[in-house]
Amino acid sequence: MTHHEPAGAALAEPASPPGVSPRVREILSYYPSESPGVQASLARLLGHGRLGGTGRLVILPVDQGFEHGPHRSFAVNPPTYDPEYHPRFALAAGMNGYAAPLGFIEAVAGNYAPHLPLILKLNNHDLLYDDDDPLPAVTGSVEAAVRLGCVAIGYTIYPGSAHRVEMYETLQFLAEQAKSAGLAVVVWSYPRGSGIDEKEGETALDVVAYAAHLACQMGAHVVKVKLPSDYLFQDKAKKVYEDLEIPRETVADRVRHVVQSAFDGKRIVIFSGGSKTSAEAFYDDIRGIRDGGGYGSIIGRNTFQRPWDESLEFIGKVIDIYADEA
Amino acid sequence: MTHHEPAGAALAEPASPPGVSPRVREILSYYPSESPGVQASLARLLGHGRLGGTGRLVILPVDQGFEHGPHRSFAVNPPTYDPEYHPRFALAAGMNGYAAPLGFIEAVAGNYAPHLPLILKLNNHDLLYDDDDPLPAVTGSVEAAVRLGCVAIGYTIYPGSAHRVEMYETLQFLAEQAKSAGLAVVVWSYPRGSGIDEKEGETALDVVAYAAHLACQMGAHVVKVKLPSDYLFQDKAKKVYEDLEIPRETVADRVRHVVQSAFDGKRIVIFSGGSKTSAEAFYDDIRGIRDGGGYGSIIGRNTFQRPWDESLEFIGKVIDIYADEA
Amino acid sequence: MTHHEPAGAALAEPASPPGVSPRVREILSYYPSESPGVQASLARLLGHGRLGGTGRLVILPVDQGFEHGPHRSFAVNPPTYDPEYHPRFALAAGMNGYAAPLGFIEAVAGNYAPHLPLILKLNNHDLLYDDDDPLPAVTGSVEAAVRLGCVAIGYTIYPGSAHRVEMYETLQFLAEQAKSAGLAVVVWSYPRGSGIDEKEGETALDVVAYAAHLACQMGAHVVKVKLPSDYLFQDKAKKVYEDLEIPRETVADRVRHVVQSAFDGKRIVIFSGGSKTSAEAFYDDIRGIRDGGGYGSIIGRNTFQRPWDESLEFIGKVIDIYADEA
Amino acid sequence: MTHHEPAGAALAEPASPPGVSPRVREILSYYPSESPGVQASLARLLGHGRLGGTGRLVILPVDQGFEHGPHRSFAVNPPTYDPEYHPRFALAAGMNGYAAPLGFIEAVAGNYAPHLPLILKLNNHDLLYDDDDPLPAVTGSVEAAVRLGCVAIGYTIYPGSAHRVEMYETLQFLAEQAKSAGLAVVVWSYPRGSGIDEKEGETALDVVAYAAHLACQMGAHVVKVKLPSDYLFQDKAKKVYEDLEIPRETVADRVRHVVQSAFDGKRIVIFSGGSKTSAEAFYDDIRGIRDGGGYGSIIGRNTFQRPWDESLEFIGKVIDIYADEA
Amino acid sequence: MTHHEPAGAALAEPASPPGVSPRVREILSYYPSESPGVQASLARLLGHGRLGGTGRLVILPVDQGFEHGPHRSFAVNPPTYDPEYHPRFALAAGMNGYAAPLGFIEAVAGNYAPHLPLILKLNNHDLLYDDDDPLPAVTGSVEAAVRLGCVAIGYTIYPGSAHRVEMYETLQFLAEQAKSAGLAVVVWSYPRGSGIDEKEGETALDVVAYAAHLACQMGAHVVKVKLPSDYLFQDKAKKVYEDLEIPRETVADRVRHVVQSAFDGKRIVIFSGGSKTSAEAFYDDIRGIRDGGGYGSIIGRNTFQRPWDESLEFIGKVIDIYADEA
Repeated sequence: MTHHEPAGAALAEPASPPGVSPRVREILSYYPSESPGVQASLARLLGHGRLGGTGRLVILPVDQGFEHGPHRSFAVNPPTYDPEYHPRFALAAGMNGYAAPLGFIEAVAGNYAPHLPLILKLNNHDLLYDDDDPLPAVTGSVEAAVRLGCVAIGYTIYPGSAHRVEMYETLQFLAEQAKSAGLAVVVWSYPRGSGIDEKEGETALDVVAYAAHLACQMGAHVVKVKLPSDYLFQDKAKKVYEDLEIPRETVADRVRHVVQSAFDGKRIVIFSGGSKTSAEAFYDDIRGIRDGGGYGSIIGRNTFQRPWDESLEFIGKVIDIYADEA
Repeated sequence: MTHHEPAGAALAEPASPPGVSPRVREILSYYPSESPGVQASLARLLGHGRLGGTGRLVILPVDQGFEHGPHRSFAVNPPTYDPEYHPRFALAAGMNGYAAPLGFIEAVAGNYAPHLPLILKLNNHDLLYDDDDPLPAVTGSVEAAVRLGCVAIGYTIYPGSAHRVEMYETLQFLAEQAKSAGLAVVVWSYPRGSGIDEKEGETALDVVAYAAHLACQMGAHVVKVKLPSDYLFQDKAKKVYEDLEIPRETVADRVRHVVQSAFDGKRIVIFSGGSKTSAEAFYDDIRGIRDGGGYGSIIGRNTFQRPWDESLEFIGKVIDIYADEA
Repeated sequence: MTHHEPAGAALAEPASPPGVSPRVREILSYYPSESPGVQASLARLLGHGRLGGTGRLVILPVDQGFEHGPHRSFAVNPPTYDPEYHPRFALAAGMNGYAAPLGFIEAVAGNYAPHLPLILKLNNHDLLYDDDDPLPAVTGSVEAAVRLGCVAIGYTIYPGSAHRVEMYETLQFLAEQAKSAGLAVVVWSYPRGSGIDEKEGETALDVVAYAAHLACQMGAHVVKVKLPSDYLFQDKAKKVYEDLEIPRETVADRVRHVVQSAFDGKRIVIFSGGSKTSAEAFYDDIRGIRDGGGYGSIIGRNTFQRPWDESLEFIGKVIDIYADEA
Repeated sequence: MTHHEPAGAALAEPASPPGVSPRVREILSYYPSESPGVQASLARLLGHGRLGGTGRLVILPVDQGFEHGPHRSFAVNPPTYDPEYHPRFALAAGMNGYAAPLGFIEAVAGNYAPHLPLILKLNNHDLLYDDDDPLPAVTGSVEAAVRLGCVAIGYTIYPGSAHRVEMYETLQFLAEQAKSAGLAVVVWSYPRGSGIDEKEGETALDVVAYAAHLACQMGAHVVKVKLPSDYLFQDKAKKVYEDLEIPRETVADRVRHVVQSAFDGKRIVIFSGGSKTSAEAFYDDIRGIRDGGGYGSIIGRNTFQRPWDESLEFIGKVIDIYADEA
Repeated sequence: MTHHEPAGAALAEPASPPGVSPRVREILSYYPSESPGVQASLARLLGHGRLGGTGRLVILPVDQGFEHGPHRSFAVNPPTYDPEYHPRFALAAGMNGYAAPLGFIEAVAGNYAPHLPLILKLNNHDLLYDDDDPLPAVTGSVEAAVRLGCVAIGYTIYPGSAHRVEMYETLQFLAEQAKSAGLAVVVWSYPRGSGIDEKEGETALDVVAYAAHLACQMGAHVVKVKLPSDYLFQDKAKKVYEDLEIPRETVADRVRHVVQSAFDGKRIVIFSGGSKTSAEAFYDDIRGIRDGGGYGSIIGRNTFQRPWDESLEFIGKVIDIYADEA
């Protein structure tokens, strides 16, 4: 089969500039249509922290105050009420970047934007009103991301919600604007709403793979999904998995399938979630992500709801797993 | 009758420039109000591939990952998860162009836009939420089509849906924008929704002809409809077909009627679908399209769900039928 | 009473430029606030064809393919599927202008705009989905009308529809845009929808007069209404007609009343419809329009559903009636 | 109490320019934040006609053709179908200005804008569809008011309607635009809709006072309300009126209260309505408005539904009352 | 723990310019991403009046005429109908600033903007129509705030309302616009609507803390909430308060918790409300706010519904409490 050779294979490729990671260069080659500005933003995210240059990422998201309330998020570890806690931690732990809503980013960007890749989370949802078909509010803008020195915008879609069309269309608008401003686009793709009428459908393998693919098709550079279970939700999809015997037993199997659904690995896919039974079980999930070809993790409450030193160690271990490839 | 002579018949027409297909020139004359930019885009689509210059087209659309999920689309032929597979195939098979949503186009435009006519499909619909009156989300933009070097935008309308007004108005806006950017406009016109309250109404001859006409009236340069059956859906239309004895027995009869409804053949109409019983039956449908005056086909799953070599042969045969006029 | 003398009566009026129709000059004086560009567009429409300079108009509208389907519109006279048929006919018959949706105009404007006044119909409604409170879709734009060399935009409102506010507001926007581009504004004012809960209310005299007045108040230069019956629909209006003994027995009486409601004859009002019992009865209706002070007719299916030669004769006779004033 | 001295009392005020009315100067001082353009427009309205310079106004509004139909408005006095009738009358009678929808203004602005202050009524409502929570359509624009040489825009709000938010927000947008174009803003504030669930609530004193205050808070320069009755509608408001023994027996009492609610008399408030029992009773209402500190009247049907000469006398008498202060 | 040192601690800080309050400088350092224009606006608000330089604020809001009607607001103290009363009082009493809707600000800005910090309240709600899920109307604009010389915009959100998404998104838009115009953003965050299905939930401690956090995350510089009770509303939040034994007995305890939820005190939080039993009880609440680290108060009816002299004394006492820190 000849169709798998890269398009420009016959061309002599220029030698890698000194100090540039070949893996990062390869990843950037998956985005051949992006401007130098967008490529530079992706490179900055991939180049920062202890995993810089490996092509792996561990990102710190702190939008839980908005999503669940400040008490449920920060009271267990009161220093985390301070917006400065989080970027300081991300720097100290060598994470790749920090994602948060407008207020938290504004409170720190003036001091941290030069030192840490920042991701402005543009839409958010709160629990003072909740409905079955959630629609997050747009609470930030590309203009704000630019003035705050961010490398990327973040945006959540809920495939399965009755309001998905509005979410997708707003993403389209914001992503196009972001790209023309040289920013990367990170999409949280969380199936939810009345189209997914079983709770376990939200993390079903077929659904997560579909959600990852949708985000990629909508122009995301980085996609964030939940670690999938081995459950299958859609009847027509189920038939395909069973007929073709697609492996889904291990975490690595399932991650591999999701990564494949994300343009055969040509989009950066990172995962949230992981076993809550013990730190060791959590590390095993990280190993599964790594072995299945996942690009990394986004870890929020597991980071900041532990005390600073314990968390430094915990995240350090996660980074070790990704870095050592072991 | 004098009314059938072309408007400028008395004028001496300039000789055809060397190497320019007279049929393509004739087709372009059906678009007398378009700018040189739009005419150039149409010419590029009509000029590419093995059918270049014949006035016939075979286009590869790959939006099924979005529409039905990646598993149902690509798992049967895993190399197709890779966004680069499809434009490579279209080039190898000598197809006229490649149409896909934003993500798939972005993943390849940087390498393929100079070599293959690309069509950015601007709206899409997924099945994680489905309703009786579908409304696809706009997931791309004319600005994106321009920066990605596309020759055309693609847009789906669902006449018969309760949301048709929104779809039509968005098409109006995007088409006007596309034309002023020198892009061609390809419209998928699929009757569907609560206005078509029988499944077989969606491919009824009267409905498909009406849908083709609507797309033309909304300014489409290229219209894509499903191959119609001989069923009639609307009572008032049925009476007309029966009173006037409009032929509808063969595929060619029905295609001829649809083409006539598309400005008497002065708009490019291409067809999807075809018999699933066997490849030979499918080829017969292609012959019917050709003999009825259809401009060509748009073939997705029938292309990429076969292995590369088998598909090359299958599509090759389709192109042969259109090219040989036999 | 002194209030009926024209405002500038004391001023010496400049002599009519050579070759300029005094009646057209008078009509243009009813639009004293319009720019020279808009006045020129109105003058072009009033100056074209066999009725040029008389202040009367007969316009050819071909939007029935969109509104009712191509089969019900064109199959009875197949050459009419060809978009070029219609402007050729309008030219041959000496009609004042040709109105159609975007696609039909785009298909001919490049060849016909210099020779025939074109009206781009900006909104349209189809029957693949129908509801009691119709809302036409905007399927064209002022930008398109300008690039296509049109003299006017056309727009339909349905007073009585639950969606009337959206229609009126879109008209306001498009009309203002059109005027600033030097285009005239033609409004089809068709009472319809749940506010008019009897079918015969749609052509009731009080309703048609109200509809004509509304279009004038919304800034229309030319208003198109249906020929009214002598029925009265609104109770409060009925009382007025009966108390004041407003004549409504003959077509001429009713047309006179509608024309009066259209700014006392200072807006161009044209009529569609007419008796279907025989050509002679239809001509009698035309005479009624003429004698009641109507500005003319807009005749679609009665034009193009007859064979070319028969239609030439039929429309010729209508024009004779308007031209000969007999 | 020191707080009632004017803010700049200590400053020497420049002497009044020759020929400038001190009362008009005082009124203009209530609008200290407005540009010279807006102040000039207000001054033009206050300076025109027989009441010019007195600080009182009588305005002619003719939007009844739109609101109730041409028959119910004009048939009783047929010359009023002619759009030119109304500004001629306003000039002849020495009224301050003329307010009408787009069509009526366009029909005369080219001749009358230099001679008579014109107010373009930007939103309107018709009765071919009526609902309990009315939403008028925006049928004009600030751009139109500018090109038509108007001194002000007019806009109706219906506090109490379920659609009030949309009305208020559109007013905000249009008023801001008008002010930046140097136009004054006249607001018709008519409580109506399901929030006012008794008919007599619409003219209740508490409701009218509230409506006047709302219009002022939304930035109106001139507010138009209905002459209130002594009824009280809101329970909580009722308690205040009774506890504080706010006088509401006479027309003058009630007008005084409304004027107080309109920024303590620092906004121009004019009244519509008045007794229908006899002309004399109507004049008494005018005296009540005058004595209560109202700025004047807006009189439509009472003007144009009387024959020209009778109406000249009737309006003349109203103006006398305001002018003579007797 | 090292994470609590300020980010730029190692840098030598420039000496405080002469006359600049160190506390104000510290507060401004909490907004490191804001432009000099925004910082200057905040400094102006913090620098004005008797509390200028202390970092505490007492603000006068007068939007009650819009929110509850002029009678219920002003009749008890009639001079307050006059828009000039309020800024004169704020100046006389040494308050930090004055907030009101468009009309009240327009009526005074031309005279007072140079002397008193003005806050234009951009959205408002009235009671002529009331519903369970309120949506205030936007009745002002950033452009107006700029032309009126204001230092800030004010905006109300109702977390818990079914319309919260629209409110949040409008806030995002207006806040971004305000910041680029150098204005500060003051957000009234009032939980209300069907998401808070108990009246006492609106002032529950967990809800008020959540509401304050939401406003901060949406980019507010100054947040205004109601003084919370010790009630807990959300079940999941309740569990946190009880498990972690978060103190909530005294006003100071509760204010401290809200201030912590507002970015650990790095956003200016001010409180409305206070005991209605006596002035002394009210002063105790003020002491509670002060001792809990609240930045100050916003006091409307308690200010202007008392006679001028009594109110001067009352507000004077409140300011004394904040100023003396005793």
